[in-house]
Formats: sequence, C-alpha cells, structure tokens
Amino acid sequence: MGKTAIRTICKVDFDKPASEQPQLHNRWHPDVPFAGTIKDGETVKIECLDWTGGQIKNTDDADDIRNVDLTKIHYLSGPFEVEGAAPGDVLLVEIMDVQPFQDQPWGFTGIFDRSNGGGFLDEIYPSAAKAIWDFEGIFCSSRHIPHVKFAGLIHPGILGCAPSAEVLAEWNRREGELIAANKLKDRDVALPPQPLNVHAGSADTEIKEKVGREGARTVPGRPEHGGNCDIKNLSRGSKVYLPVHVPGAKFSVGDLHFSQGDGEISFCGAIEMAGIITINFKVIKNGVADLGLTSPIYIPGPVEPQFGPGRQIFFEGFSVDQHGKQHYMDVTVAYRQTCLRVIEYLRRFGYNDYQIYLLLSCAPIQGHVAGIVDIPNACTTIGLPMDIFDFDISPAAIPAKKLDMVNCAFETGVSEGKVVTDAGKNSEFSFGGGMTYKECAD
Amino acid sequence: MGKTAIRTICKVDFDKPASEQPQLHNRWHPDVPFAGTIKDGETVKIECLDWTGGQIKNTDDADDIRNVDLTKIHYLSGPFEVEGAAPGDVLLVEIMDVQPFQDQPWGFTGIFDRSNGGGFLDEIYPSAAKAIWDFEGIFCSSRHIPHVKFAGLIHPGILGCAPSAEVLAEWNRREGELIAANKLKDRDVALPPQPLNVHAGSADTEIKEKVGREGARTVPGRPEHGGNCDIKNLSRGSKVYLPVHVPGAKFSVGDLHFSQGDGEISFCGAIEMAGIITINFKVIKNGVADLGLTSPIYIPGPVEPQFGPGRQIFFEGFSVDQHGKQHYMDVTVAYRQTCLRVIEYLRRFGYNDYQIYLLLSCAPIQGHVAGIVDIPNACTTIGLPMDIFDFDISPAAIPAKKLDMVNCAFETGVSEGKVVTDAGKNSEFSFGGGMTYKECAD
Amino acid sequence: MGKTAIRTICKVDFDKPASEQPQLHNRWHPDVPFAGTIKDGETVKIECLDWTGGQIKNTDDADDIRNVDLTKIHYLSGPFEVEGAAPGDVLLVEIMDVQPFQDQPWGFTGIFDRSNGGGFLDEIYPSAAKAIWDFEGIFCSSRHIPHVKFAGLIHPGILGCAPSAEVLAEWNRREGELIAANKLKDRDVALPPQPLNVHAGSADTEIKEKVGREGARTVPGRPEHGGNCDIKNLSRGSKVYLPVHVPGAKFSVGDLHFSQGDGEISFCGAIEMAGIITINFKVIKNGVADLGLTSPIYIPGPVEPQFGPGRQIFFEGFSVDQHGKQHYMDVTVAYRQTCLRVIEYLRRFGYNDYQIYLLLSCAPIQGHVAGIVDIPNACTTIGLPMDIFDFDISPAAIPAKKLDMVNCAFETGVSEGKVVTDAGKNSEFSFGGGMTYKECAD
Amino acid sequence: MGKTAIRTICKVDFDKPASEQPQLHNRWHPDVPFAGTIKDGETVKIECLDWTGGQIKNTDDADDIRNVDLTKIHYLSGPFEVEGAAPGDVLLVEIMDVQPFQDQPWGFTGIFDRSNGGGFLDEIYPSAAKAIWDFEGIFCSSRHIPHVKFAGLIHPGILGCAPSAEVLAEWNRREGELIAANKLKDRDVALPPQPLNVHAGSADTEIKEKVGREGARTVPGRPEHGGNCDIKNLSRGSKVYLPVHVPGAKFSVGDLHFSQGDGEISFCGAIEMAGIITINFKVIKNGVADLGLTSPIYIPGPVEPQFGPGRQIFFEGFSVDQHGKQHYMDVTVAYRQTCLRVIEYLRRFGYNDYQIYLLLSCAPIQGHVAGIVDIPNACTTIGLPMDIFDFDISPAAIPAKKLDMVNCAFETGVSEGKVVTDAGKNSEFSFGGGMTYKECAD
Repeated sequence: MGKTAIRTICKVDFDKPASEQPQLHNRWHPDVPFAGTIKDGETVKIECLDWTGGQIKNTDDADDIRNVDLTKIHYLSGPFEVEGAAPGDVLLVEIMDVQPFQDQPWGFTGIFDRSNGGGFLDEIYPSAAKAIWDFEGIFCSSRHIPHVKFAGLIHPGILGCAPSAEVLAEWNRREGELIAANKLKDRDVALPPQPLNVHAGSADTEIKEKVGREGARTVPGRPEHGGNCDIKNLSRGSKVYLPVHVPGAKFSVGDLHFSQGDGEISFCGAIEMAGIITINFKVIKNGVADLGLTSPIYIPGPVEPQFGPGRQIFFEGFSVDQHGKQHYMDVTVAYRQTCLRVIEYLRRFGYNDYQIYLLLSCAPIQGHVAGIVDIPNACTTIGLPMDIFDFDISPAAIPAKKLDMVNCAFETGVSEGKVVTDAGKNSEFSFGGGMTYKECAD
Repeated sequence: MGKTAIRTICKVDFDKPASEQPQLHNRWHPDVPFAGTIKDGETVKIECLDWTGGQIKNTDDADDIRNVDLTKIHYLSGPFEVEGAAPGDVLLVEIMDVQPFQDQPWGFTGIFDRSNGGGFLDEIYPSAAKAIWDFEGIFCSSRHIPHVKFAGLIHPGILGCAPSAEVLAEWNRREGELIAANKLKDRDVALPPQPLNVHAGSADTEIKEKVGREGARTVPGRPEHGGNCDIKNLSRGSKVYLPVHVPGAKFSVGDLHFSQGDGEISFCGAIEMAGIITINFKVIKNGVADLGLTSPIYIPGPVEPQFGPGRQIFFEGFSVDQHGKQHYMDVTVAYRQTCLRVIEYLRRFGYNDYQIYLLLSCAPIQGHVAGIVDIPNACTTIGLPMDIFDFDISPAAIPAKKLDMVNCAFETGVSEGKVVTDAGKNSEFSFGGGMTYKECAD
Repeated sequence: MGKTAIRTICKVDFDKPASEQPQLHNRWHPDVPFAGTIKDGETVKIECLDWTGGQIKNTDDADDIRNVDLTKIHYLSGPFEVEGAAPGDVLLVEIMDVQPFQDQPWGFTGIFDRSNGGGFLDEIYPSAAKAIWDFEGIFCSSRHIPHVKFAGLIHPGILGCAPSAEVLAEWNRREGELIAANKLKDRDVALPPQPLNVHAGSADTEIKEKVGREGARTVPGRPEHGGNCDIKNLSRGSKVYLPVHVPGAKFSVGDLHFSQGDGEISFCGAIEMAGIITINFKVIKNGVADLGLTSPIYIPGPVEPQFGPGRQIFFEGFSVDQHGKQHYMDVTVAYRQTCLRVIEYLRRFGYNDYQIYLLLSCAPIQGHVAGIVDIPNACTTIGLPMDIFDFDISPAAIPAKKLDMVNCAFETGVSEGKVVTDAGKNSEFSFGGGMTYKECAD
Repeated sequence: MGKTAIRTICKVDFDKPASEQPQLHNRWHPDVPFAGTIKDGETVKIECLDWTGGQIKNTDDADDIRNVDLTKIHYLSGPFEVEGAAPGDVLLVEIMDVQPFQDQPWGFTGIFDRSNGGGFLDEIYPSAAKAIWDFEGIFCSSRHIPHVKFAGLIHPGILGCAPSAEVLAEWNRREGELIAANKLKDRDVALPPQPLNVHAGSADTEIKEKVGREGARTVPGRPEHGGNCDIKNLSRGSKVYLPVHVPGAKFSVGDLHFSQGDGEISFCGAIEMAGIITINFKVIKNGVADLGLTSPIYIPGPVEPQFGPGRQIFFEGFSVDQHGKQHYMDVTVAYRQTCLRVIEYLRRFGYNDYQIYLLLSCAPIQGHVAGIVDIPNACTTIGLPMDIFDFDISPAAIPAKKLDMVNCAFETGVSEGKVVTDAGKNSEFSFGGGMTYKECAD
C-alpha cells in the first residue's frame, strides 16, 4: 500500500542545550543506554545536531571557533538498538539520504586556533578562522570565499557501533601509551577520557560517571569500529559494513558534513551542519568472520559529483618539508607539502592563504597516496576540480585583473595583514619552537 | 599535407646491454650529455627499456627479482634538449600515447627480497616474488594471478628535467643528512651517489666519473623536478608542467608501467615494461614564477578506465599498527594497514598473500588520504574495483567452491607453505627485530 | 548574514481540486495571469502537483490509469514573472534541487490504454497498467516490479516560458494542419485547443474562455520554448537556457519525475510524483540573438548517477519493424525495435512484458541515435544498467531458478494471461487494423 | 611462457588495389570463401583498409569525395572461420584494441555530394567536402577544422557474421520492396545487389558472379547480424554478442573509425582510417536461444573518454522541420533539427556550416532520444563536449575577436561563398524539388 513517511527515530531540539537531550551522547562506551530500537531491514530518519552541538554561529568573526569547548564534542545521535544484532555480526548500513534542515540552510568550516585544537597546517597557520556556507539545494557558496560554488558530497563524518568493554580497554591502553610517551610536548597527541562535560544520553548518574571515566573520546576514528572516519565519499547511496561488538549493535551517527575534501585538513574542515540522515539497517549474521573484517569497508553510491578527469589540476608533494628537511617515507609530511602547493598556486588569483586552507578542507578535492616505495620520498597528489570556481584557474589562465576575494572570518585581534601567509622557504613563522606532528614519538 | 609517421628520437636495442647504449642513462646530473634535440611544439616518440634494463625475464621463478642489481637502475631515455627552454621556464609535456612494443606484449610485477630493495610490506612479506603479465591490446592478465583481467592505465613512472648543480647539491645535502642519522639501522633510508654501474649516456670518462660521484639516484621522486613520482594517473592525454633547471631542459623519461595501483606498494609494483612513449613538448617562458610552481603539476587525460563509484569496495585503515601500537597521525602506517585489510579480505577467495600483495601493487586501486586531523588516528582508504575479477568478490558473494588460484613465482627455496601469510594480530613473523619504516629517525 | 530558509513562491494543497488552485494552470497561453514575482538572481522553491493533479492513486489496480482524464493535464505551477525579462532575452534557470514531499514518498509509472492516450508500444501492449514506486532517500523500488532498486535522476518533465500570441498562433497552425491531414485515422496525432477542463490560473471568465479556445495543450514539447521536453538528464544542478517570448517571461514548471528513461516510452512512463523544485533565475539580456538560440539548450549538473560504461548492456535496433517491413531511415521504428529487444532479453528472468515496458520507461536507460546514414536502416541503441537489479542480468548469468516477479497492476478485466506478450514475428495482435505511428501522414 | 606477439591473421597491402587482395571482400554472402581460421578462445590481429579501399587522399580538395565509387565499398577483412561456431550459436567478440597504422597517422571525414551518396543534412548542405585529421597518439586534430583536438573513441564501423542463404533472401525481399515502392523518387532509398565491382575474396568466377547477383550491400546495418551498425561506443574493451548464421561463423570486420559522433551524420562522417584491430573470439553454444537474441548486444569497455556531465552543452530538437511543418513523432526529423541547432550555435565562433557539419559527424557527441511519446513532437538531444575546443564555447563565453577558422576542403567549383549555409527559416535552397528522407514511402 505504498510507503508513508519514513519513521523519524531521533529528533533534535535547537532550543535546548545538546547536553540536556537524552537521545544524544558524546563519548563511546558500551553502557550508554539505547536511544531507540530499529528493526532488522528497517529504514529510519535520524536528526543530528552539528558536531559542536551549536557552539558555532552564523557570524563574520571566528571567536566562537577560537573558544570552542572541545570537551563537549562530538554530539552524536543514538546509540540505537538494531534488533537481532550480536557481537561478531556485521551491521550493513545503507545511507539512503543526508539533508540539511530546510529552515537552516547553512554550515561552517573552521580553522582551530593552534592552542585549541589546531589542524594539519597549524604550524604555518596558527590563527582561528571561519567560513560560513549557504546552501541552495545541492549547491553551497560562501560570502567568505567568493567565486566558488560546488555540489555537496554530503555525508556523515561519524558512524559506528559501540565498543565492547574489551575493545574500549584496548583503546585506552594504546592511546594512553602514546600520551605517556609524549607528555612533555606542547601538543596533545591524543585525548584521554574526560569526565568534564560528558554526555551519556539517558544514563543515570552512576553510569554517566563511569562513561566519563572510561568513555573514549569521539575525535579519532578507530580501526575496530570506524567511528570518526571522516571519509568524504561515504555519501548518499553508500553501503557501510560495520563490525558489531555489543548486543543490539548500539549504533550512533553524527558530525554531518555538507562537503569535505580528502583529509579534512583544517580539523573542523568539512562544511559542518545539522541535518537529517536516512539509513537502512540490515544485520549480516557472523559477518565479521565471513568477510574477514578487521575494520569497516564500504561501497560508494552511484551519485558522486563528477568533474571528468581532465577538469582537475593535480598537485604533487613529497616528504621533504618546508624547512628543506628530508623525511623518510613520511606520507603525512608529503600530504602537508601537497596542501602547501595548492595554496601557493591559488594565491595568484587573489585568495589569501587562510581562505585557501579553508577551501582545501571542505571542497571535494581528491587526495591520493601516489608513490610510497621510492626511498626516501613518499609522494602524494591532490586533485583540485577547476569547475568549482566561476573563473578560469587552469594553468593557461591569465589572472589579468584581480577579483575581489573579500576575506574569511578571523578571531578578534587577527587580520589579514598579520596573518602568516608565506609557506615557502623564506617564511618568517610567527611562533617559535613549534613541535611538528612528525616530532611526536610514537 | 597531413602527418607522416611521427619522428622517433630515441631507439633502444634489446640485443645490447643497456649500459652500452648512449641514449640512455641512470643518474640525474646536469652534465649528462644531450641525447637529441626536440623543437618547441614538436611531438616525438621515445623508446624506453624496462626500468631494470632487461634484468627480469619471462619465467616462473623469481630469482632474477631476488638478485636484481639496484646499482644499475633506472635506465632512462634521454636527456633531450628542448629548444628554447631555460631555467625558470616550465616544460609542458603532453603524453599523447604510451604503448608496449608490439612484439613484446608482456611485463612483470615484482616483490623485492627484504634484503635487496624490500617494499612497503616487507616486514611481513620478506621474500622475492614475481608475476608475469601478458598484454592483449588494452588488457592484461597473468598466469600467476588468475581470474583477473583489467585495462592498463598506462604511464611513465619517471619523467622530469635534469637538476641544476645547485639543485643537485641540495638533494645530496638533505638525503645525506638522513642517511647519516640512520647509519646504524639495518635498512637503507636513502641511496647516496653510487659510482658503481653508473651510466652517463655518451659522456666521456671524466664526466662519467663526476656523474658517478655526484649524480642523484633515480629511485626517489623529488619535489624540485618530479622524477620518479610513480603517479598511476599520469597516463595517455595527461599534461604535465615540469620546472626547468638547466638550459635546454635535459628532459628524461623511462620506467614505463602498463598499470599501477596508488602507492606502487611492492616497490617493483607496477607492471613494468619496455615500450614507446609519444610526447608533445611546449615551453612556457617564465612559467615557474607565473604559475607559482614549486613542484610539478599535471592534468589527467580524458580516457582513464572507469568503473563507476558503486563498483569498488573501499577498505579503511588507521594509524594503529598490526602490533596494536598507536602511532600519531601517521599516514604511512595507516596506508600499510589499509593494504593489509585488502589482503585479509581477498584471502577467502583462495589467493595467497603474495598474490594479493602483487595485485594491490599493479591493479588500478585508488588510495586516498581520508582523514588526517582526528588525533591520533590518520585514516586512509583503498578502493578495489570489483570488475577486474572474473568472479564476484562483493561482500554479498558466497565463495562456494574455491577457484584454482595457482601461485605467483617465488625465489628459489621459498614456497607457499613457508611464506609468512598472516598479517593479523597473532602472526608469527619470520624475522626478528625488524625495524619498521616508522622507526627511522628523520 | 547567512541564508534563512529559501522562499517558497508556490504552495499546493492536496485537499483541494487542482482546478481550484489559482497558482496552477493547464494550458500554454500568454494571457494566463502571473502567479507570483521572482527577482532576477533569486532562488525560490516551487511546489508542484503530479502531472495529473492527483488522479492516480497508490493502489494495486490500474483503473485510474485506464480512466485518466487527459483534458485536465498537465497541472503546472505558475506562470511566474521574472523581473526584467523581456522578449528576446534568455532566462537562465538553474535547477538547485528537486525533491518529493517528505510525507508522500511514492510515485507511479503508467501504461495508458491504447484508446485513452496510448504509448510508444501500444500496438503490442494495448492495456492499461501501473507500477507504484516507494522512495527511500535517493532510491526507489516497487512492489510491482521486484528485485530492482535505483537512484532517481530526479527532474522536471516540463519547464518553459509562455508563448507570445504569435508563437501560439504558429503552434495552432502547424498542429492543426497535421490533425486535418489525419482526421480519418483512428489515432490522435495531436491535441487541439480544448475548452473542457481548461484551468487558466487566476484568470477571470473571459480570459479563461480565451485560454480554452486558443491555449496550447501541454502534452508536446515545442521547439520555441521547450515545455514538455521530458529530458531525463535535466536534473539537479542543470542549467537551462530558455527563450523569453513575453514580458516577465511567464515561467511555468511541473510534471516532476523521480526518474525516467530516455524516451519515456510508455507516455506516463516516468516515475510521476508531486514535489518541490528549487530554482535560481537569471535574465540574460538579448540572449536569444547572442547565443543563436532557436530552442532551449542546457548543461547537466555534476551529480548524475553513474554506473561505469562496462556495467551497461546495450541493445541494438534497426528500422525493420516486427512485421519484417523495411522502413526508410526511420529512427522512430528503430527505437521501438530496440525497446522490444530489451523486453525479449529480460523475459528470461521471469518478468512479464508489461513489467519490462514500465521499467524501460522509468529506469535510467540510455537511448542513443547510433547510426542515421546507412540507407535504409537507422540504428539506435539502448543501454540498460545492470546494477539496478539485485541479481545478475549479464549475458554470462544463468537464470537457474526463477525469482518471484509478482506482477504490475492492470486495469480491471485484464490479467497477465490475457495480455498480448509476444512481440516477435508470430504474435497475434489483439487489435485489428491498428494504424502504426509511421502510417500517419505528416 | 608468456605471450609472444599476437598472430596477425590478415594483412593488407597498400600498394595493390583492394579488389586484388583475396583476404578482403565487399558484399555479404554465405559463399564468400574463408580468409583464415581462428580458434575458439584465440586473440588475433586483423589489418583493415579504410572503407573505400584507398579512394580518398590526404589532400585539400574534396574531388575524391565527390567522385567516390560507391559500388566498391566497403572493403571488409575476412570472412574468418571460427572453429566450432554453428548456426544458433553466439560469437562473443571482445575488442582488445584498435589502432591506426603507425606510419599512416591520418584519417578523413567526408560530406558526400547529394547526387553521389548524400548524407543526413544533404537537402541543406548538398556539396562534397572533406576534413583531414592528423593523429598523435590518442588525439586527433585537423588543419581543416582548427582549434579542436580530442581523444578518439576508436572503433570498427562494421563487424558481423555472414548471413545464411535464408537470411540473405529475407534482406533482398524487404529491401527490394522498399526500392520498388520508391522507384520514381530522385533519391536512392536502398541499394540492391550490384554485380559491378563486386569483390568476393578468393572466390572463383562462378561464386563471384553469384555473390554479385545476390550479395547484400554493406551499407546498412541489419538486425539479424549487426554489420554496419556504426556505433561509436563499440570501442576498445567492448564485448559484442553476434548471432551466428552459417557454419564457422564467417566473421568479417572493417570500416575502422578513429572517432565518430552519434549518428555519423554526414554518412562518411566518422574519421575513416586504415588500421589494425585486435579481437578475442569465443563461441557461446546455443547462445541465440539462451540469450533471447534477435539482434546483437554489446557491453562497452571501461576506457571511454569522459568529460564529466557538466562539460557538455545539450541541444534540443523537435519534430518540426525547418519549413515549419509539423511531423508526427518523427525522431529522424527531430534529430536533424537538433543537428541544425548545434550548427547555428557554433557559427558565432567563426566556423562555417560545413566545418560544423563535419565536426558533428566525427567528434564524440552524444545523441539521445529524449522524449518519444508527447504527440506530435519527438524530442532528441545532442551533447557537445566543450573541452574538445581550445577556446571557450560555453554560453557564458564572449567571442570577442574571431579566431581564424580557415576552411574545410571542398569539391572543385564550390567555395565557402557559394555554399548554402543558412539552415534557418529564410534559407534559399540551391536544389529544387528535393525529396526529403521523410517523403519516401515505406
């Protein structure tokens, strides 16, 4: 008799603090209570807040980014019980749709301040900055990065099933060891359990305290369950195969992105938004063993925006850093260099470095591991689609008169003039003795 | 009056040692003499030997791989003078075609022995192995990895312009520092200049000795000129923008690949072949400054094999290694884990690990940097096209009866039974105290 | 300060007859009053009824299809005034999004009875039939055509600007001549103005009567303005360039399709639905002359579902009809034959002919004009994506056990057994003396 | 032990008339003797002359096109025996590669004179014209249509198995009826058997005369075997399923095209060339019945040039002809109108109509049957890739200064000024009483 409207299993309230909404939570822990039950085979809609729970506003300064409280994030919707799911099964999650709320057609991309979150290029770009994006149907554009418009490859940044107690203990062990080995460094290398601002859904006080003590932070993705994998292609139509670790699966989802580039390089780099995700759930009994599954796998949907291979400029980066230092087969260094190559290239059209850094984080760029065996240089590439710009950025283009590129939003006290913009060899960095990512001992 | 056959500027001789052919060379150095002159705007054909200069044979054992002489490689064709090119210019190189020789329709993929070259997974797979590929038109297949056939994304592994003396000195400085810092390790971290088996084209003795003393090895790609970038998408129709460092450009090319996967993970991981590349050359005066070019950029051609997004399985890997150790934002570790996930998945269809390792290296897999900011876990993905197999490898497939998967070629003394095949947690590694890539100090 | 919800310029009411809603109309005429005003550059949402104005129900019989009142259709939303648009201008219409109503996630595909509308294959398939499609996010599936699921290439079947009085007169002249030349035939060859059930929006009685007398029917697309072009790729992200014939443009839109195959062969062949279209409007002054525009042109958006070329089976058809008669370069005959080839091919998997006829009409098949010059045979092809089926339909597939294919909905008195299903040479047609399309004199 | 060069089963001789080469033939007839034998499963190379057997030269006039002898064409290579193939089987033909001869890197596109062959637009463009194309690797360009370069979607225009005597008789019957019904017209509607210039391969005189009397001309494709289907996507990697009608299949191939647009509209509209095709042959026993095959089907290969959907301009055409006459659902008329819309659009960049007519015929344009049910107007579309031009042809482009577009080659006595170039309403046709395609009775 035809489908009636699809059941919404989780609603969010924009007029109430995220921390007071029992169908949300912000830690991974097996004891967070179920927020609803889904049948095997059912399709449901799940509403989600943006990952910060509403801390970021639609404004032209970035003080909210500067001051974001990272103990609170990410607010996820769930966990949901999937009937019949048991440890050792695989939960097949088909993403039928992701949409922003119709009356809130906007999102944000942020660069965190180096002292509060940082990002992939924070040694060079240490200040907080922000771009607001307006949505019109499948497209987005920004008053902070003009002359750009593109279709969102919309997706959830986070989805996964809760860890078992054993899996959680293993996470805490190995991340604890990394933290211990780096405790004198001026950079957080991982985030330990944090009771402050813990949100354990509808849990009672005792459980909530336990979740605060033990619960894994939502920031990293982890191999056993996926979680915050931030995979830009995990968009509409994708099928994700998730290992189940606890009875009922305890599936959670959140951190919806209107778009993201490979790497999400500025950390808050996607176009972050609140929205609604429609998911179909199926249980594959004994799937973990049958599929030989250690980490999630997925198959993309058929509707990725496509530009044609010949409409992308690819930039190459190698594991020699901006100080001329040779690193050994370090893809992380190579990818950072590749990002810098894009920034250098786009400068000539009038954008400043922070605008490009933001754009790289959220536009549908392709980041490839090109060569990983030619010692000592790993090589990565980034493909930048030319057709997201409303002017010609090809190498043949002559940027005759500069377009007005305005600027992105900055934290108070920072302006374009003061920003460190030269990523090249002769740059004068505004911070001293900064530890690079690389210099953290594993 | 219409085109006659395109000029072949470089022919190779299969009956003569590579070292005796003056139009070839195997080091980067500004003093290697020109091997021919190309007009600005001209299209020429350039024949190339395979990168080893013919050391690998079409056989069913891998002793030739085991014993490959790495002091000799890579044999490049050139260097060629491009009229009008000067330092600061950009050489625009359009790859009009790449073809194997019609009477030699085969190539090889090798896994180097850990003690002679190694590869990205050599801690786990230390033995030499080989697969021979037969070409039929655009397709290849292998008696060593049956039930697979795919169209080659054919390309040169190496192309670039010679370094200036200054650029070469910088290469030797920074790579020398890396070598010095790691000299007690049991692994080569970079290859210093090597007089043994140097080939400087038509140079006289004095120049040849100088090239031997100073010349950069061809193994790594380097940011200043590209070189051995091993980018699989640099195929037919691609336009590459190469910085020019010396008068006349001194362009060289070689290391032709019938196909390669992102990363070329087994080092000799592409389908290596001899062949003919057709290139159009154009000089862009002052291009380095005008384009803001620090490293090469390229725009792919329009004819990449395409599978549709929904016909690829994507595997996820994170920077937690197979020993359970948490690494900090290490994309190299994450990519290695992603490779292992593919190996674990394909095992159930009857392939052994070395076959999959070889296949991963040469089939057109997509390797993406997915998330690089969620401390401490970098996340990478690999997309494996399902349609290169002649049976169903989708998660829905039931591998009822095992197909006969034969085996790849191994070095003498190694057989499938003795090979270390378990990359999982409980594996018993056959080597002790192996230094990981990661453990080399930068 | 960021976008608030996009303005909805036209709402529809499901509880009121379409004929009583003044923002709708069902004839093309320059005198239909404006239903709203849009600024040059503005983006608005426009709600639309399904093309029949709600005549078709979500049921398992096709009597509603059998009895559809074609004097009423199509109900279009509009016409809207676009500020600044004048005759000779081009209206650039960018389709930002098309969505079904969230609480009505279903649509229908119909085969009209030969005596009431007919369709492209009505000589062979004369009965009314129907399939109901359920929407889940970007995907649809049907209880009447099981084992099929695909992503909608969602689009409007009709959009265009009102004709001027001169253009309208030309339409009536040329179509009147065709009708006059064929008046003794048993088939309608075109639909003349029809006062019965005319809906002229908010027009007063006098205007309404004039529109009834003169107004062009909405069934055919016409070169001067596009109109009912039924182009399946005119989906999200498309930019359409529409000639303007009257001051203010008088733009109308409707006939939303969740999906359609090239040709929309069963006439009511798309997945017809009510929904909401989001459009951005821009006026290009003097565009008709500047662009040399006689008919609309468009540029598709970047998000078409893609299957990969190697995942489609292409069928070939020629201008020799099913009676063995040779037609001269007749693409219409060739395309009909190509449709029959698909039907014959899919039969072996258990679908009946009406199910396939419906599927061909609405699934994203590619219909190409392949060869049009090799006298006397035009050749067309249809590409059928294999991946919309949940079982293997490739030529290599062995349809071992028949799946349960249920059936589509039929008009009362018709069941599968009585339906004429043999399109081959020996078929016994259930109707006598049927005039073929071809036999109508032009 | 690895592949040696693939066997060439058919060589052509450029120094000898095609009519004297026994491995070629130019009629379809079951009695043409075998030209070689292929094993089931074997891959072979087959050399082919261009379809005219060398009548067209690399010159700047089109007199050779004007005077082409159509009794001679097409020269096909074969017929080849495929071991084990019998009537009722399907021959699975996989096109592994198609290449021009390396020392003849050029081809031609021609517009036939209306009195000798004609073409799809010959009422409007009656003169003979020609463009010569130069090949550089995968790309082609022409001195006669400057500022265009594109990758060839290279393919054979003709391939198929010989008809049985019964199938051949049916062809002669139905085409004979069409000819008889139109014998007073000034246009050939089909070509009957033609003893003049018949070439029956190695047949003796008696057989040759029989082939001359009965043999089917190679011009049209025919549903029973495919033949001259001129499908542009039947390129490298395609798998074609061909019905077998005689023992040994008697497979023939020829009419190689470097590129073609959908429709091949100027008749000699592809980029015609001599070349080498590499094919793998497999016999599917009883395939005709098992696959329900009435006409050939095919699955394209994975390497079609791709532009991205958003990089094509689509033109719409309807079945109202250039005289304002309304035709009834006539796709042929609609497609001709769509062609005219492209010509009108490209004129403003400086090309003349004949250049565009040639370009439309051979560039990889997409021709779709868009809507075929909205009486009385069929609607077709043509997608023109913008990226084959080296300047901007988008609607946003401002053709400020005209580029020098030179001209195509014309037959003697015709120059640009005298050519009828106006396809619009006010055109003065240079021929009187011309019968349109449409006016031929079926």
